Amino acid sequence: MTRVNIDNPLIEPAAGNGLVDRRLFLSRSAVLGGTAGVGGLAWLAGSSTRAASLAVPEWSKVPGLPFIGYGQPSKFEAGVVRTVTNPANAPGAGAAWAPLHLLNGTITPNGLHFERSHSGIPDIDPDAHRLLIHGLVKRPLIFTLEALARYPMESRITFIECGGNSLALYAKVPVDGSVQKLHGLASCAEWTGVKLSILLDEAGVDRRAQWLLAEGADSAGMSRSVPMAKAMDDAIIALYQNGERVRPSNGYPMRLLLPGYEGNMSVKWLRRLKVTDGPTMTRDETSHYTILLQDGKAWQFFYPMDVKSVITQPSPGLTMQGAGLYEISGLAWSAKGRIANVEVSADGGKSWAPAALQEPVLPIAFTRFRIAWTWNGGQATLQSRATDEAGNVQPTREHLIAERGNKTLYHFNAITSWAVTEQGQVKHVYG
Amino acid sequence: MTRVNIDNPLIEPAAGNGLVDRRLFLSRSAVLGGTAGVGGLAWLAGSSTRAASLAVPEWSKVPGLPFIGYGQPSKFEAGVVRTVTNPANAPGAGAAWAPLHLLNGTITPNGLHFERSHSGIPDIDPDAHRLLIHGLVKRPLIFTLEALARYPMESRITFIECGGNSLALYAKVPVDGSVQKLHGLASCAEWTGVKLSILLDEAGVDRRAQWLLAEGADSAGMSRSVPMAKAMDDAIIALYQNGERVRPSNGYPMRLLLPGYEGNMSVKWLRRLKVTDGPTMTRDETSHYTILLQDGKAWQFFYPMDVKSVITQPSPGLTMQGAGLYEISGLAWSAKGRIANVEVSADGGKSWAPAALQEPVLPIAFTRFRIAWTWNGGQATLQSRATDEAGNVQPTREHLIAERGNKTLYHFNAITSWAVTEQGQVKHVYG
Repeated sequence: MTRVNIDNPLIEPAAGNGLVDRRLFLSRSAVLGGTAGVGGLAWLAGSSTRAASLAVPEWSKVPGLPFIGYGQPSKFEAGVVRTVTNPANAPGAGAAWAPLHLLNGTITPNGLHFERSHSGIPDIDPDAHRLLIHGLVKRPLIFTLEALARYPMESRITFIECGGNSLALYAKVPVDGSVQKLHGLASCAEWTGVKLSILLDEAGVDRRAQWLLAEGADSAGMSRSVPMAKAMDDAIIALYQNGERVRPSNGYPMRLLLPGYEGNMSVKWLRRLKVTDGPTMTRDETSHYTILLQDGKAWQFFYPMDVKSVITQPSPGLTMQGAGLYEISGLAWSAKGRIANVEVSADGGKSWAPAALQEPVLPIAFTRFRIAWTWNGGQATLQSRATDEAGNVQPTREHLIAERGNKTLYHFNAITSWAVTEQGQVKHVYG
Repeated sequence: MTRVNIDNPLIEPAAGNGLVDRRLFLSRSAVLGGTAGVGGLAWLAGSSTRAASLAVPEWSKVPGLPFIGYGQPSKFEAGVVRTVTNPANAPGAGAAWAPLHLLNGTITPNGLHFERSHSGIPDIDPDAHRLLIHGLVKRPLIFTLEALARYPMESRITFIECGGNSLALYAKVPVDGSVQKLHGLASCAEWTGVKLSILLDEAGVDRRAQWLLAEGADSAGMSRSVPMAKAMDDAIIALYQNGERVRPSNGYPMRLLLPGYEGNMSVKWLRRLKVTDGPTMTRDETSHYTILLQDGKAWQFFYPMDVKSVITQPSPGLTMQGAGLYEISGLAWSAKGRIANVEVSADGGKSWAPAALQEPVLPIAFTRFRIAWTWNGGQATLQSRATDEAGNVQPTREHLIAERGNKTLYHFNAITSWAVTEQGQVKHVYG
């Protein structure tokens, strides 16, 4: 058995309760250069075994399985699925939460991308689907999928987060649950499609036009009003998700993509864009998706998802395996550009250490942060706090609720706290 | 119907036979700034329709489908699959080709990532799988998956290309086929895992150690010799592929990842790393994966995949729909760092225009290039030529074969040519 060497001088403390200098992750040669060949850091805490040979397992003695056209995960990963709510009176009018605590990196695979729908997933024949652009335009146009395929495409890796993600954290008592249950209505993928500005230019937008109505082909006719400035800036009509056609649950055969805006603005199964002089005041932006303040007033058309982060490993549902060195890892994102830094605390916010950010750090995309932690086997409260390049800092829960109250369900972006017990259990708490 | 305006002054010629200045893609405001509101470029060539309303389709009249734990592509995309060879006498001892002509962006979704195996896909229980590091080390170590999960992880988006990809282009007569058939043994994903250098430091590498033997747990025991310098540089033990656990066909539960090296060096189902003072001369690096020259000598241990590109749209299997504006798009990659530029020719290499590169351009990763083309409805020969940041330029087929002959099956990286007929068919030719 190797032993934990938590007194190794290479592990410089960076904040209280065991957080380690991020340079440990940044450059092996800078930190460990002198130690190659004389043994490095011991991460294993007894979980590796010293031995010089391995038994030959059964699966190495028989030919393996043949190839198939479209591959699937291992049967041993059957537990890595979205959790779903399909209300009995309205199947499909619910959501599916991504298992972010079981994933790593920044890309969400298509089978696990979160979804939220208002009337289920329509079964659309792509050859019969049409996109109409009309309203205050010189030339109303109808596009087939085939016609759109000739236009210049653009790809970007970007997150989508439901406006109602993390709503459980508005509750007065901490809800018991994993990252998936608490924050699983967010995902990140490479989206590819046609810049909406090119289509609007071709239709010829009237100078009175300040807004668009975007409408989906689902039976709820999910509809939102989109500011023209956003439509002409970075909006795309997304046809591809992580390389392949957009999945049915994410808008097949095409969805609007408004990077950074609350998820349902990126209208799925997009069938109609009407150019208008003002917002349409649809059901989905008056009865829902507003921020109701304590005094009864509401913020409407509050679109960008604010800077946010959460530690995914360790987190509830994952168990620590004894004192020693661990990697703390998580995700950070903001609609306001790139993540500038993420700080991590192991003592409930008393002291903070900067985490390493995985390159490339892309704007309006999940950013993976990592920091080493020598857990001493005692109680700890883990938190992460992200800052974006616009200078926005993720608030504490107290600060967010002091500003907005807790009557709303939307746009919760405050710090999440995980308590680690002496038994290695991890639990959601208010820090 | 809108009309093609191929005389639009905004479309500046950049090379012969209709290639258009890439600035058309780079900045809408720079090129089209003055035209917003007065109509932009007409891309449609009659494939859009002017109309102000849409009929309501059937799927908008009924509730949609409920949510499921692990999502799948639309049933209408059933043709977007890998093509597979499962030899009758040895199922699984073949390959599966990615449908690159039907994908867009740069990420290959996990279900469509190419595979090549020598004895099929082993059915590995991850809890019973072990990784042994032994040989010239101070402390031989055996790692469980759980033990590895505590180590610092690293993510990178990188391509993997089979050493034998594109071997059909060594044939004397052009093989009829799509990008999938000709070049489909390459894919790109975000891989996440533990830096191998950290594990080797922990094992304590002897100073005589110059190589590693990497062995898979498949029944072929696929084995390759890896230079220690590469192992200590950017090698990782990959546990995650596009966020989720590595797929069985790609090495579940862990594979070696050697960015840029010929694919089978990134040994799948990795079970053993033996630190050695020289190469082991395994079956897989003596009978295969060498470059046999005309004079009977062979290049052995020829690892990095050279700079390469291919146009994916239009390409064989996709049909042009009449004269007018099109996007030409494709993929470029190199083991020697970032792609510096990609040039496109529509006249069989007589003249070239620079394509726009999709940001972010990452090292040792697929890079998507795009350029606009006004097809005049006549014959054309489309080619792409990539240059990497190390200055390597993708050679012509003639040049490559003049240098190496065509006795080998490996490392073909020369320019591919697509002939476009007056009927809009696209065909593989030697340019």
